[in-house]
Formats: sequence, structure tokens, C-alpha cells
Amino acid sequence: MNIAVAQSGGPTCAINASLAGVYSAAQHIDEISRVYGVLNGIEGVINDEMVDLSEKITSDVNYQLLLRTPSAVLGSCRRKLPKHTVQAEVYDRITEVLRSHDIGMFFYIGGNDSMDTVAKYSAYLCDKGITDIKIIGIPKTIDNDLCETDHSPGFGSAAKYVAATVQEIARDSNVYSIPSVTVIETMGRHAGWLAAASCCIRANGESAPHLIYLPETTFSIEGFLSDVKNEMSKHKAVIVVVSEGVKTAEGKFAAEEYQSGAKDVFGHSYLSGIGKFLEKLVAAEIGCKVRSIELNVMQRCSSHIASLEDIQSSESIGMAAVKSGLEGKSGCMMTFVRESNMPYSYRIDTVDAAKAANSEKFFPKEWINAAGNNVLAPAYDYLMPLIQGELHAIMKNGMPLNFVI
Amino acid sequence: MNIAVAQSGGPTCAINASLAGVYSAAQHIDEISRVYGVLNGIEGVINDEMVDLSEKITSDVNYQLLLRTPSAVLGSCRRKLPKHTVQAEVYDRITEVLRSHDIGMFFYIGGNDSMDTVAKYSAYLCDKGITDIKIIGIPKTIDNDLCETDHSPGFGSAAKYVAATVQEIARDSNVYSIPSVTVIETMGRHAGWLAAASCCIRANGESAPHLIYLPETTFSIEGFLSDVKNEMSKHKAVIVVVSEGVKTAEGKFAAEEYQSGAKDVFGHSYLSGIGKFLEKLVAAEIGCKVRSIELNVMQRCSSHIASLEDIQSSESIGMAAVKSGLEGKSGCMMTFVRESNMPYSYRIDTVDAAKAANSEKFFPKEWINAAGNNVLAPAYDYLMPLIQGELHAIMKNGMPLNFVI
Repeated sequence: MNIAVAQSGGPTCAINASLAGVYSAAQHIDEISRVYGVLNGIEGVINDEMVDLSEKITSDVNYQLLLRTPSAVLGSCRRKLPKHTVQAEVYDRITEVLRSHDIGMFFYIGGNDSMDTVAKYSAYLCDKGITDIKIIGIPKTIDNDLCETDHSPGFGSAAKYVAATVQEIARDSNVYSIPSVTVIETMGRHAGWLAAASCCIRANGESAPHLIYLPETTFSIEGFLSDVKNEMSKHKAVIVVVSEGVKTAEGKFAAEEYQSGAKDVFGHSYLSGIGKFLEKLVAAEIGCKVRSIELNVMQRCSSHIASLEDIQSSESIGMAAVKSGLEGKSGCMMTFVRESNMPYSYRIDTVDAAKAANSEKFFPKEWINAAGNNVLAPAYDYLMPLIQGELHAIMKNGMPLNFVI
Repeated sequence: MNIAVAQSGGPTCAINASLAGVYSAAQHIDEISRVYGVLNGIEGVINDEMVDLSEKITSDVNYQLLLRTPSAVLGSCRRKLPKHTVQAEVYDRITEVLRSHDIGMFFYIGGNDSMDTVAKYSAYLCDKGITDIKIIGIPKTIDNDLCETDHSPGFGSAAKYVAATVQEIARDSNVYSIPSVTVIETMGRHAGWLAAASCCIRANGESAPHLIYLPETTFSIEGFLSDVKNEMSKHKAVIVVVSEGVKTAEGKFAAEEYQSGAKDVFGHSYLSGIGKFLEKLVAAEIGCKVRSIELNVMQRCSSHIASLEDIQSSESIGMAAVKSGLEGKSGCMMTFVRESNMPYSYRIDTVDAAKAANSEKFFPKEWINAAGNNVLAPAYDYLMPLIQGELHAIMKNGMPLNFVI
């Protein structure tokens, strides 16, 4: 039997570690001959674009580079499949291609859209009575919004980047003697996990960030300005972290609501991010020194400050997926189940992929303070284990070396 | 005799290493009793705000943390002094405060505005016939635009951050099968050194960045769109690096010229950065997937990917400054003089601070290609030695530990 593995959705620092884990586990199992890497997600199955990973991962150094390389070395896609009851042809084609390569297990690393694909193909396999092909989902997302798992591979590294960078920006903000406000915008359209992760800098005694706004609370201009003024009375350099997706009382994106009708110089409607909007708001309404910083894709690709815990557990969950497949499981997503915060321990389990698909895990409301402008101790206790440890890049010519297929 | 050291201008990852160098050198010199750290630049002399650094740097771990801490631990200022022939009082006051602490040497770490202060105070000391106080400038700037020195402390770390991050963004941009353009905006209002530093990622075989635009060439919308279309015919994911200060044929900032009259939602005039403008331009004129990323202050404060060469040479130039002061030099700026690119070697020298003050070192036109959209091999050869080596952060609780006064 051969197996195949593909990557899907937005890249992370750890999606290649899960790929590495699948490859590594297969090396020790006699029943598995080849491990195919499928290019560009499920599209690569449909188009029969596969590479024999043993021809690419040819040394231990290669393997170590794969663990440390950000983004998805196999490429990705965002294709969502129809139900097989509506359109069976695409699943017939997937099955045909997998069979042509003698593939008995297919591992799909991705977010909740990818788990939808796992659930749908699994339903097709069940209905057709096909038992010699298993499909298993392996979670990943920097947003940490996948349901049914304690956390998602990739989140820990993104969280560590956010926290380390917010700390460095706090240092940078403190050099001048005049009062200032710095607004840092993180990713997170619907869930505030990444913005919340900035609280980890308190571990070594930082007072920043002074304000943290998440999509799970109600954001208002008046509340924000009042909060900032209050913090300015206590701190010379006020550090604000805000999720891109903070919402108004009506549940609409604040960045869109407050700038509706805004046009760019080309006459097209244009919205700046919430960070830039809040910078302009503070300049207009408070008039102090203010700047905004968007952490942008660096949140998901800064492998040079990846979390060792994240990379190692992402590799482990890939290895565990192979074991689960051999045990006969299919149609499931691998999950982390936390057993303890301190000392940190977890086990790996599985859940029906349909339960994880198409839903989002929000930041718990009970971990947010009453004022809705900061996070509480349980958030810190949950987050801290995920950012522990470093996996230093392998450097050549002063630059991190990457694994490229 | 005691000595004093202050930091000025915008923060960098290496300005604390030069401070550490001054402190370290003084420990081995019998004539020097105390090393005072002056808070908030020259303002801290005028206001007599000094700390005895031996009370702050109390262990080798402390010293190692100081080397690794971004920004300026003593605080900074942007105060420019009048000439002493116009207003002598401020220099009388500086002299009075320095004498009250028995300070015989004052080291001022900063950019070209700070060298102006060094030159002016030196002129005052000469005119007054004061020989028991020496003032020496120690260069720093991430922009690398200080004249009379091969490069400036702080630039190497900023260059390494830019290159490593552009490489990670290149990885991130390559995952999707559709064509895309990514525009990365670096700092550099007048000099393109930081944008040019992105060429270092070619060391390990990257084709990106495909286009690099510097303030030293003429930027035009037509040329840019033509360049991008040309690169799109060769690469699926086109990576563009652009200095914030690129200029039109009339020598005006492109970002301002192309958006003149733009207003924000508050009705105030508002200019997005050149990166965001080019994103909107590509969306409007080419219509492909496009995004822009501003590297912002992370360029100057990302100590977690600092260049070891930069930190060590910044420490060395601080140590050399103390030696120069003991040799009787004053009114000078310390400089690096490059002796060889490969193997890299340099020596430390001094130059009259007035020669470095109030002028800018531009990126050499002969290191830019004829089309004005990329840099040539001599740029790469100059830049590569400056980004070599890593100085790993000292971590605690999963976060870099900082030195804080």
C-alpha cells in the first residue's frame, strides 16, 4: 500500500511539520511502500499531480529543513467540493487517481474547509462501500478557530511571533519622553486568539499590551477612545492590540462600518484595516503621537521565531494520523486533548471530521474582562504552553535555509 | 575621571550594543571610575538625568541581555541644538552638568542629527579652550545613510530582518496556483539601503525579489506596471520590494504625488504608504491577486533575528570610542573602514563629526541596474558580510528576555 498527503488553506509555520510527521511515521511501517506528496491540495489529486516524497526528503538535514520551512511546500488550494449526492463525478475521479497509485490512506492537512472535504469524501466512501481507502484530516490554522481540538497546529508559532513582536514594539515605543499610542493589528476575522496571544509578554513582567480588543466583544469608537485616554493617564507609551475582525454592536466589522463610502484615489471603494483606522481616529480625536502596525502575513510565516512546542506537536499529530489510519479510522480529524496546563500535557485523539468542518471555535467570553478590553488569567494559562521553546533555523550565508520541492 | 554615554534618534537593534561596548571598555581602564548612562539623549545632560550604569549592569547575564535588547535602554530624544555662537547658554549648562559629575568624556550614540550635536559642542569646547572634556560620536542608524563610515551600526540587523522576512513572504506567496503580486514596503525616505538588502535572499538560490525600487532612481507608474507585467510572464508569484521614499521624475515622493488630495474618513488629508498605493494600483490596472506588506518598525526592533556581525561590531565601535577618547580625540565620529568584502575585514577609525553631520549617504547609482528596478552584484557583495551570524535571544517563559533600566 502507498499513502498520500496534501496541504490546503492558508499557510502556517507548522503545516510542513505535520507533512514531515506523516512521512516519518510511514518510514517505520512495513505495510507502507511509498508516501506521495500531492501538489496544490485536493486539486492535485483530481489533476493527478503527485511527487514521491522519498525522492525529495533525501537526508536528515532535508527532513530538519522541512520542519523549519514556513508555508506549504506542496502548495495549497481553496477549492470546496460539492456533496457527492449532488455531484459524484469529482469523488469518482479522486478515487480513480488514488487507486491508480495504490493509495490506501489519504491525509489532508488543513482548516475547517479542508475538514469539510474530508467529511464529504468519507461520506462518499461509506455510501459506495469502499473500505480500502481511508481519509484522515490533520488540523492546521494560525487562527486557532478549529472546533473539537484544544488548539490547532500552526497557532503556537503565530502566537509566539505576535507576542515576541509586540514586546519588541513595546521596547521601541518607550524611547521617547512624549506620550504615544501604538495600535497593533493582528489577523483574526472572527476569532480573537492571535490578538489574545499578545498577553504572553506579561510572563516576564511587561505591563503591555494595555488594551486588547477581540471580535468576541462589542467594539465602539467611544469606548475605545475612553479606554485609550484612561491608559494614557497611567502609561507614557500605550500599546493596543486589536483583531482585524472587531465588530460593532450590530455585529458588523468595525473597519467596514466606520469607513463605509471611503474611496481610494482610483475611485474604488477602499477600507483600510482597523489598525490604520484607529490610528487616524486617535490622531483626529486625541491628537497625540500615534502609529499603527499591521503584523500581516509575518504572523503565519515567521519560522525564524517558531514555537518548538508547536513544531514538535504538529509533527506528532502527523505521525499519529498514520497510526490512526492503520487502525482503520477514516473520516476523522486528528485532535489535541489537553490534560493539564501546568505541567503541560496533552494526548492526541480523533473526532468525526464533520463535527469540525464549517464551524469556528471562538475565544471564550469568560476569558475576557468585564470591560471587554483585555483578557484574563485563564487565557494566559491556556496560551503559555503553546509558545514554549525554540527551533533555531539552519542558516547558510546568514539566511535561514528552506526546503523547497 | 568619570565618563557618560547617551543614545539619540530612532532606535535600532544595535544601539544598546554600542552602549555595552563603552561600558565594557571602561571596566578595564584605571583612569575611569564611573560610567554614567544619560537618560533621553542630550536632554538628559541638560536636565541632569543620569544613572550609574554599574548599578544597572550587575552581572554578565545583564550585559548579555543588554547586547540583545532592541531600542534604546536609556531613552532617546530628537532635540537639535542651536550653534553656540547664537546661544551659548545651553552649552554652558551641558558643561556645568558634565563637570558636576567629573565627566571627562561624553559619548553620543546617534545618527547625523546627533553628529551635528557632537560637532557643535566640540566647536564650543574649542572656542572656550576647554580641553578636559572630550565628546565623541558613535554612529547608528538602520537607514545606513551616515556619511564617512562604511556602514552604520544597526543597519546589519535591520538588513537581516528585511532579507529573512522577504524570504518567508516569498515562501508564503508561492502556495497558490494563481498569479499574484506581493509588494513589500521598507523604510528609507531618501536612501534605499534597506530595500536593497532584500537582495541577500539570493544567497541561497531564491529568484525573489523580482523588482527592487529605491529612492535613488526615478519611479513612474507606467514603468512600474510594465515591470510587473514583465515579471508576471516569468514568475507565478511576483515579489516587489519598494523603499517608502521612491520619487517621481520631479524628485517628489511618489506616494504623496500620486495621492495628493486624498482624504481620510475624518476629512483630513491622508496618504497611504507607497506599498498600499501600489497594491491598489495593481488591483485597478492589472486586476490580479495582490497584497502589500509594510515592514514598519519591525525593521528596527526585531532583535530576535539580529545580525551577530552587527551586534559585535557595534559593541567594538563603542569600545574603540573609549580608546579614542583616552588618546585625546574629541569632536569626531567613530567610523568603520572596510578593507575587504571576502574575507570580510574592517578597521575602526575616526572622522571629524562635522563631516558626517547633516548629510546623507545614498545608495550608489552604479550598483543599480540600467532599468532602475533592481540592484547589481556589487550591492550584494557589500551587503552580505553585514548580515552574517546570529545572536540568539536569552529566553524565559518562551519569550526573549530584555534588559530594562
